[in-house]
Amino acid sequence: MKILVTGCSGFVGRHVIAQLTSEGATVVGSSRTAMKLIGAEHVAANLIIPGAAAALIDQVQPTHLLHLAWNAVPGKFWNAPDNLDWCAASLALVRAFHDSGGKRAVLAGSCAEYDWTGDGRLDERTSPTNPATLYGVTKDALRRMVLRDADHHGHSVAWGRIFWLYGPGEAAGRLVSDVAVALRDGGKPEVSSGTQRRDFLHVADAAGAFISALRSDYQGIFNVCSGSGVPVGDVVRTLSEAMGRPESVRFGARPTDPHEPPLLYGTVDRLHSDLGFRPVFCLREGLADTARWWFRTAAQYEKPSGRA
Amino acid sequence: MKILVTGCSGFVGRHVIAQLTSEGATVVGSSRTAMKLIGAEHVAANLIIPGAAAALIDQVQPTHLLHLAWNAVPGKFWNAPDNLDWCAASLALVRAFHDSGGKRAVLAGSCAEYDWTGDGRLDERTSPTNPATLYGVTKDALRRMVLRDADHHGHSVAWGRIFWLYGPGEAAGRLVSDVAVALRDGGKPEVSSGTQRRDFLHVADAAGAFISALRSDYQGIFNVCSGSGVPVGDVVRTLSEAMGRPESVRFGARPTDPHEPPLLYGTVDRLHSDLGFRPVFCLREGLADTARWWFRTAAQYEKPSGRA
Repeated sequence: MKILVTGCSGFVGRHVIAQLTSEGATVVGSSRTAMKLIGAEHVAANLIIPGAAAALIDQVQPTHLLHLAWNAVPGKFWNAPDNLDWCAASLALVRAFHDSGGKRAVLAGSCAEYDWTGDGRLDERTSPTNPATLYGVTKDALRRMVLRDADHHGHSVAWGRIFWLYGPGEAAGRLVSDVAVALRDGGKPEVSSGTQRRDFLHVADAAGAFISALRSDYQGIFNVCSGSGVPVGDVVRTLSEAMGRPESVRFGARPTDPHEPPLLYGTVDRLHSDLGFRPVFCLREGLADTARWWFRTAAQYEKPSGRA
Repeated sequence: MKILVTGCSGFVGRHVIAQLTSEGATVVGSSRTAMKLIGAEHVAANLIIPGAAAALIDQVQPTHLLHLAWNAVPGKFWNAPDNLDWCAASLALVRAFHDSGGKRAVLAGSCAEYDWTGDGRLDERTSPTNPATLYGVTKDALRRMVLRDADHHGHSVAWGRIFWLYGPGEAAGRLVSDVAVALRDGGKPEVSSGTQRRDFLHVADAAGAFISALRSDYQGIFNVCSGSGVPVGDVVRTLSEAMGRPESVRFGARPTDPHEPPLLYGTVDRLHSDLGFRPVFCLREGLADTARWWFRTAAQYEKPSGRA
């Protein structure tokens, strides 16, 4: 079993690599820029360059593929034209993987594939897709092709739809990371009233869910989520408490987008029953873990100048 | 105005090239194998080779793109895995075209994108898609991405869904071509009772529809069809009459597939009203034209040996 993880330097990818290597798995991580991984080989590859995906498969010859790479620049990826390049690159990757005799592939999808105008419950079996963004459209389109191809030609493929993630290593420009950094650095983060409810999962649990999927033979779509819609304001409040500064958050200082659906959460029957996965973190413990990480990160960053 | 036509050696492509060049348009045809076109430049390119699509755009620098190329091997293309390669190649082609400043693109879709389990009326505005084949899934997926990208980024793009075509140049292994060849060569073609009704269009009219779309600024989906569902048996009967051998067809000698929908036809409001296109051929005249072509083709093929 030789596992190729694309997007290994991304938010989910780093946690996947850490968990797989701690389990002693044979892992090759791939991302655009050359880097060293602890316990795993790294291959630099920019998958949206024509031919790069097939060359990567040819070089690594993986038996298992976890494809996480995609444009995920906060605020920019929703309608970036290179979503089309990422779909094309993913098709090339999957085709090369199957052609080289690969046994099992799991790909990252998104809750953005779903129609968000319903009652807020997003079920892999029954909820319609109707993506509102080019990102959602390309993920939805890629899934349709890859899963139909898999069913028709007998390939073992699963597709994990990621909901709202938070945790150690989150990029700037996202809710939890921005609030955490502001609170850590003495700021007073301004947020909306946060009544809209979303489904949040710790990134390490998302990584665990994908690894469970990779080790299973489950075919088709599974949600990567907690199963609960929690008010976004509660997430910020719990985080601020974990960081010891609950009074510093300015709720309601930003307007709530009236087009934001009031509730979005995923069903977890497939994740729990079909994949046998259980998350490690509840939301409170997950946010406490996240708070500790942001404090620890600051300390690490300050070391060089403080002790020079 | 410089028009690039991919798949120029295909069934529709050859008729497109003939019509465009007869109108004096500046045309570049592209297909896999090097060939000469009358009145147009040809560039050989196998678009599913990584990088080939971008290289073709770079070389030709078209202002207008008519993308017809795809795997269309009769009987094999419905579920061939290279449908995924064709989707990836098409994404690369469209991306490169837009990046190079291309003004107008029209792509070939298929009635196979539609859900065929409804009442048989296939309307671009209201009929749901639910493709039953990998070919249909990849065309449907490509359309979702390309049209959303176009709407979001202000590109001028239309998507023509091709129904049942017949006419000069049709490949072997299809209904009209196989019956025509059998009748011409003294055979007794065996067909089903042919009660299922389908929407047939002469390939020259399909070519004309795509050219109309290319010259318009219509945005979105249009059906390439006649607007009528005709019993397949009537098509065969009319063809056999045009070939002077109506008694030779053995109707009912083959079973009718019980899963075949009884009726499939497309609406033509968009084609006629929005694109301003009117077909040249009614079905009877179109089949007479087809019959003449098959007789002429036989005569041409026989010349070299007969007059050597």
